[in-house]
Amino acid sequence: MKLGRLNHIGVVTPSIEASIAFWRDTMGAEVIREPFDLPAQGVRVCFVDTPLGAAGGSGGPQIELIEPLGEASPIHGFLAKNPAGGQHHLCFEVPDIHAAKAWFEGQGKKVLGEPRIGAHGTLIFFVHPKDMGGVLTEIMETPKDAH
Amino acid sequence: MKLGRLNHIGVVTPSIEASIAFWRDTMGAEVIREPFDLPAQGVRVCFVDTPLGAAGGSGGPQIELIEPLGEASPIHGFLAKNPAGGQHHLCFEVPDIHAAKAWFEGQGKKVLGEPRIGAHGTLIFFVHPKDMGGVLTEIMETPKDAH
Repeated sequence: MKLGRLNHIGVVTPSIEASIAFWRDTMGAEVIREPFDLPAQGVRVCFVDTPLGAAGGSGGPQIELIEPLGEASPIHGFLAKNPAGGQHHLCFEVPDIHAAKAWFEGQGKKVLGEPRIGAHGTLIFFVHPKDMGGVLTEIMETPKDAH
Repeated sequence: MKLGRLNHIGVVTPSIEASIAFWRDTMGAEVIREPFDLPAQGVRVCFVDTPLGAAGGSGGPQIELIEPLGEASPIHGFLAKNPAGGQHHLCFEVPDIHAAKAWFEGQGKKVLGEPRIGAHGTLIFFVHPKDMGGVLTEIMETPKDAH
């Protein structure tokens, strides 16, 4: 397998609204997308674009703000340990999600569940941080209209 | 201030050698730089390039692998809490490090020390995670020959 593009960095927050204000007013983000719910995953998310260079705007990896949605959200445990929020996962793109799953499993890595539709509308899975140098890693199929 | 390019994601590891093997053999990274010591900061680091797209190679943000260097390394505490390693900080570029320091301080954010030379040879500082949504944030001046 060849390392793909870093699509986004997942950052957990107790409040997406407060985090949007932080990224807009303190960090100076120019492009912040509309937040939306992912009920199947128990999260509400919001993507903040980063620029590729000094010209600003978009094109670099996004910051994915993640807030718990519902009482069964898997994010509650993270916030109990890190009440202010913090870095949660890294997401890399692959051309074929099923080939990627077979690759990681062949390397003895623990893939968490079957591929499912993620926040960008393509198939994703997560790999357990214990097998990935302590980094919870999301693998997502590159959107067909991207890049 | 305008959000700058995401230069790198800092990832702590108990062993840079083992992490290089992981990023090369499991993640498929094609460009991994020579590790080097930063004695003033008590760390040994190694940059792994990520691609901008499906063509592979470099151009995206780097992964900065960080291993403790010496008994007084500030990274020992992180590894005591996270023995396998894990995500440590995000680093964004700015055109002027002193203007950026004044900006964050003006926003009431705790800047950790004076600007100093970082791993890419330009001035950097860190901002305390408690003021940054739980994310330890490095701000670095863009290298003059970059991008």
